[in-house]
Amino acid sequence: MTDATRIVLASRPDGKPTTDNFRTETVTLPAIEDGEFLVRVIWLSLDPYMRGRMDDAKSYAKPVALGDVMEGGTVAEVIESRNSDFPVGKIVAGSFGWTTHAISNGDGVRIVDPDMAPISTAQGVLGMPGITAWVGLNDIGRAKDGETIVVSAATGAVGGMVGQLAKAKNMRVIGVAGGPEKCDYAIKELGYDLCLDHHAHDAKSLGKAIAKAAPDGVDVYFESVGGKTLEAVLGNMNIHGRIAVCGMIAWYSGQGVKDAQPLPAVWRNILTKRLLVEGFIIFEHFHKFPDFMAQVGPMVGDGRITYREDIAEGLENAPQAFIDMLGGGNFGKQMVRVGADPK
Amino acid sequence: MTDATRIVLASRPDGKPTTDNFRTETVTLPAIEDGEFLVRVIWLSLDPYMRGRMDDAKSYAKPVALGDVMEGGTVAEVIESRNSDFPVGKIVAGSFGWTTHAISNGDGVRIVDPDMAPISTAQGVLGMPGITAWVGLNDIGRAKDGETIVVSAATGAVGGMVGQLAKAKNMRVIGVAGGPEKCDYAIKELGYDLCLDHHAHDAKSLGKAIAKAAPDGVDVYFESVGGKTLEAVLGNMNIHGRIAVCGMIAWYSGQGVKDAQPLPAVWRNILTKRLLVEGFIIFEHFHKFPDFMAQVGPMVGDGRITYREDIAEGLENAPQAFIDMLGGGNFGKQMVRVGADPK
Repeated sequence: MTDATRIVLASRPDGKPTTDNFRTETVTLPAIEDGEFLVRVIWLSLDPYMRGRMDDAKSYAKPVALGDVMEGGTVAEVIESRNSDFPVGKIVAGSFGWTTHAISNGDGVRIVDPDMAPISTAQGVLGMPGITAWVGLNDIGRAKDGETIVVSAATGAVGGMVGQLAKAKNMRVIGVAGGPEKCDYAIKELGYDLCLDHHAHDAKSLGKAIAKAAPDGVDVYFESVGGKTLEAVLGNMNIHGRIAVCGMIAWYSGQGVKDAQPLPAVWRNILTKRLLVEGFIIFEHFHKFPDFMAQVGPMVGDGRITYREDIAEGLENAPQAFIDMLGGGNFGKQMVRVGADPK
Repeated sequence: MTDATRIVLASRPDGKPTTDNFRTETVTLPAIEDGEFLVRVIWLSLDPYMRGRMDDAKSYAKPVALGDVMEGGTVAEVIESRNSDFPVGKIVAGSFGWTTHAISNGDGVRIVDPDMAPISTAQGVLGMPGITAWVGLNDIGRAKDGETIVVSAATGAVGGMVGQLAKAKNMRVIGVAGGPEKCDYAIKELGYDLCLDHHAHDAKSLGKAIAKAAPDGVDVYFESVGGKTLEAVLGNMNIHGRIAVCGMIAWYSGQGVKDAQPLPAVWRNILTKRLLVEGFIIFEHFHKFPDFMAQVGPMVGDGRITYREDIAEGLENAPQAFIDMLGGGNFGKQMVRVGADPK
């Protein structure tokens, strides 16, 4: 019998989450049955979509029930197995949640090759954020070589990948990020042509800065934030521009709604510029994972794609790290080290 | 030498246009040169897009300059010609504007077959509004047989055609129109399954009425109005629904902007339902005119497609008819009889 320490949803947040919305508990897991295996979690990924799951609102996925373990992508090691596809010692990626241990039958779990790249990337550039960037750029944003793209949350787990993939397509790549340190990183490490610090701008001046940064206008906007960045980019979109709507983190906790640009101005841009605006969630595109890995895996392996992780130590620090991330306090892919590296 | 009476833009409107924004003048046209021909206008079409041209704002087309003739699609008769492609007596469709006579070199002018359908349809169901409906439904709305569509301005020149073309595709077709008379017409004459009177609803109750009318949700929204209709439909859109943005007449003159739904709620719908929202203007799709005529021409000829015209008598009444149309006062395609029928 194995004890699992896990973090459950204690209450639904009213606006921004607080640590009171979470509760830590320890449960004893049952013995595994035929076809099952037991994992110990090494890495937990924290991602903005989790904020949506905390609300009891109709969305693309069911909310986390009160008292249930918080959802989350993880990288883990098989430590006991009655499933020959997942033998002891294998590293796997799966959605085991905010927990130290879990039992699985293998559904939705994939084996990770630890020789290709550090295993944490299985929840980063080579995991959900990576394929989100890849699908959003190509299939939703319909990005073409030589076009200009603006990437919001430019150094985030998804945005940082969008920028690098766009640069590999010879696009002009303009990032928007919070603070000079992130912008510096976007240009020096991720290869952005330019990065604008939204802390230094209101919507209007950010719009002017984008106009200057994109003398030929903006063809693709990778949208993760909403808020003033959306407003600033909209006015700079080219005719037949595309907006890939991947998130709206600026509005997730209900803030900024009153300050949002009036809808008619947005609609007018869509109409007069014949924009295509499309929302997407990556879960519907996972069948492309093999294609994504075949194309992007080698780029991570040989260093053409770089990444940065912001690591919180210990599962007990996951709630605060998550709250900080929602406020833009992280720098790079937010991960939680739940357990020791495999030997 | 021929005198042309014409209506020019006297001043730019501040909000809703008034008759003071227009001025009537008479000019003497020069003699036609080689390659040119002279027409007398029989029908002038009034369309919502003209409101945009009255503003000095960046849009998809240049504004009408102060003192210039108001733009407009017309059906006319060639009465003098030095162009063998357009001999005297031919009926033609072209953008001659709000005028009784004009000289053309044939650019953008097409010959109309008066035996196929009444010639006014060349600016209606078989003209710009017709192809707008056809392209918007099929190419932008990506409508499929058996899906559910909501059509705003359901009895308008474009909407009435969208509804009928959608019905011909075996879709469930729900109209939204202003007043019981229009709704009655939509159901009895245009074949809508249902039509909701937006005068009888606020956004919330209209949303409930649409939910009831569309038990399987809404797959396609043909958007011409914005305002509360947009808000009401959005909440009923199905996952992977499409919104073809053809106009936003409710907001054209700046009214209703404060009452508009907050942008974050709209963005949330786009994201969580993976909607595709696309603006279009028909001028970019005119190369499909032959395909459109081949498919839809016979449907008008044999009565499968019906239409209704709201006729203002005399060019001098065009400004008031235009103002009334912007307020939803017309019932059917708004036309102005500028000259007598051909003999």
